[in-house]
Amino acid sequence: MLNVVTLDEAGKILQNLVKPVKRTELITMGKAVGRVLAADLCSQADVPSFDRAMVDGLAVRGADTFGASDTLPAMLSLAGTIKMGETPDFRLNPGECALVPTGGALPTGADAMVMIEYTENLGGKLWLVQRPVSPGDHIVKRGDDFAAGQVVLPASRQIRAADIGTLAALAANQILVFEQPRVAIISTGNELLPVGEPIVPGCIHDVNSPALSVLVRQAGALPILYGIVADQPDELAGVLTKAASECDLVLVSGGSSVGEKDYLAAAIAAQGKSDLLFHGIAVKPGKPTIAGLAGDRIILGLPGHPLAAWFMTFWLALPLLDALQGKMPTEPETLTAVISCRIPSNLGRESIIPVKLIPSAESGKQWQAEPVFTKSGLITALSQSDGCIRISRELEGIEAGSQVTVYRFH
Amino acid sequence: MLNVVTLDEAGKILQNLVKPVKRTELITMGKAVGRVLAADLCSQADVPSFDRAMVDGLAVRGADTFGASDTLPAMLSLAGTIKMGETPDFRLNPGECALVPTGGALPTGADAMVMIEYTENLGGKLWLVQRPVSPGDHIVKRGDDFAAGQVVLPASRQIRAADIGTLAALAANQILVFEQPRVAIISTGNELLPVGEPIVPGCIHDVNSPALSVLVRQAGALPILYGIVADQPDELAGVLTKAASECDLVLVSGGSSVGEKDYLAAAIAAQGKSDLLFHGIAVKPGKPTIAGLAGDRIILGLPGHPLAAWFMTFWLALPLLDALQGKMPTEPETLTAVISCRIPSNLGRESIIPVKLIPSAESGKQWQAEPVFTKSGLITALSQSDGCIRISRELEGIEAGSQVTVYRFH
Repeated sequence: MLNVVTLDEAGKILQNLVKPVKRTELITMGKAVGRVLAADLCSQADVPSFDRAMVDGLAVRGADTFGASDTLPAMLSLAGTIKMGETPDFRLNPGECALVPTGGALPTGADAMVMIEYTENLGGKLWLVQRPVSPGDHIVKRGDDFAAGQVVLPASRQIRAADIGTLAALAANQILVFEQPRVAIISTGNELLPVGEPIVPGCIHDVNSPALSVLVRQAGALPILYGIVADQPDELAGVLTKAASECDLVLVSGGSSVGEKDYLAAAIAAQGKSDLLFHGIAVKPGKPTIAGLAGDRIILGLPGHPLAAWFMTFWLALPLLDALQGKMPTEPETLTAVISCRIPSNLGRESIIPVKLIPSAESGKQWQAEPVFTKSGLITALSQSDGCIRISRELEGIEAGSQVTVYRFH
Repeated sequence: MLNVVTLDEAGKILQNLVKPVKRTELITMGKAVGRVLAADLCSQADVPSFDRAMVDGLAVRGADTFGASDTLPAMLSLAGTIKMGETPDFRLNPGECALVPTGGALPTGADAMVMIEYTENLGGKLWLVQRPVSPGDHIVKRGDDFAAGQVVLPASRQIRAADIGTLAALAANQILVFEQPRVAIISTGNELLPVGEPIVPGCIHDVNSPALSVLVRQAGALPILYGIVADQPDELAGVLTKAASECDLVLVSGGSSVGEKDYLAAAIAAQGKSDLLFHGIAVKPGKPTIAGLAGDRIILGLPGHPLAAWFMTFWLALPLLDALQGKMPTEPETLTAVISCRIPSNLGRESIIPVKLIPSAESGKQWQAEPVFTKSGLITALSQSDGCIRISRELEGIEAGSQVTVYRFH
């Protein structure tokens, strides 16, 4: 009756339903890292806007230096000296040269630079050049970095730190990018208090809202907090409707007791014409995870237990955030380790086990992974762990000494 | 005369001089990821503050259920029903039980939960329990997550996303951390214009200030922009003095022409009683990199060429930012690839080559690295590359097909 799926199946069901956010906004360069271009970024002008010397020396016409050597230098007449940041107000005629510093502008007519080491001033305007240069030598020509109109970074490109120099060279300080996905974060439960409020007996602080917000923000999306909703079916359904109309993805956690479970499933199912996408996942922790649609917006119903909510966000929501941003899926950072002891697991149900990484005594490169066992419902395990491992539902556990893939936490 | 060192030597010289920032500040939970705790984070109270049910069912005294079975159930009298978030106002006496939802508070006297599936209501207050439970079964005891006064996260711990749940559970919304290192960023050169200003002939936009700011910010430090300083020795020396008095590290780029080179070296050397720490690095690009001290603050003089300035910041400044934050050195993300063509290099001088990564046709896992060659002084290479490789100064190049370590860009 209940539609229970595996963790990988749940991921695929959700991935098939998610579409990239197409709303756009203009942002400044300093905020561009990690964002995705909504249009080709084109150069508005030639960069650099003039022919630039790459060495200190004499700007020349290359043809005037052909065959020059120590014993038979070319003799040129200094037409002028150019300072950094200045535009030459003269033209270089055959037989002439000009002193230009590295980065300075070449006068019209010049097509190469001779390094100052291969020149000699005979006094006054007369200079000797002892090496030949070809046109283009030791200069950057106008437009060599970017020609006006050129597509420098294509639409859909995710901007990296290494691209910021390019944006600066283009003077692109207003950049059209796709908006960050808006992710609604809702916690349910009469026993929850916001972190800012003092604790009262019978209540606990809401861990999931801040914990999931940080994961969402790290993934490049915008967490929108809808606060704590009491265990009232109508109120919850109303908040879900509002959140789904305002956000691109809804994460709602809680509802782990019998009555609440029904509320949450009913409130999610009430949003759409369809049934739930799945109703439970064969994974521990994370079993009571459910999902549904409100229009084309996914609502992911997470367990209330913080460890389970965190793992399900990590494995199910983060890939959706990549897709919403039009990014290639971010591969979780992994390493291979040897497990320190036998870990039992149930056939038919995948297990996710938090582990601590310990450098192995034998070799510098090898890691040992030690499972961090805690009672269900505690949140200490996350802080004590460096990552987690997944044990397949086809295994009844893994033996001490087995090689495992550890997915690292950040 | 000039004190030229290798890139690794330069890194070691600087690392030996840098000390962690010890200034502290209070921040909120939402800004804590990546920051380093300045004091032990202790639990101010027991978490949870009460004994909590982990299943829906009956709170009992375990001793009352010993030996209970389907055929010989224990009979208990219901002392009350507890709702989520409420504190029981009664005590559980021997022979009594209480209905408690998952997450609810146990009454005083109860020490275990029986899952609702193993109970039966005989009508009225009479309940049968068909399974025995031991004290502690299916509950989280007061303080099981954190006991009052317990050190939960030790001083010097870098806070990760996975720790935010713990901070929330502790209601630690004011967290004492070390201040982020302040990193002065200065560009020098008469030819430079800020990105916001229109280009004029002979001038180029300042690429290094925004590009290096992003690298610094990504590494967890605070870039402080001192703008563009003209090629005037006194002015530059003055800005360096001010920056070194206000910041923990000074990055100054530019001074690539003959006159400027002298200005920058002189301005840095003028800050301290000591000579320059080094005056040139045997690496391409990056040769004109210099360093000195103003008091105990390092001033790193970077080349003006954006690619060189970026590489030297990547290899020399980022490890300093880890050390200033008291963090373990961040290992650059690497992968192994096969180089696509011969790359020549000079004996005695290390080379850093930007490369593009191409999935190899033969195998799914293998990458091919293709060098991105550009003229010196251009910045396009960074945007076109996925990372860089280093070619040892003991080699005259590497052959096509060689295995290389690629340091990835972000």
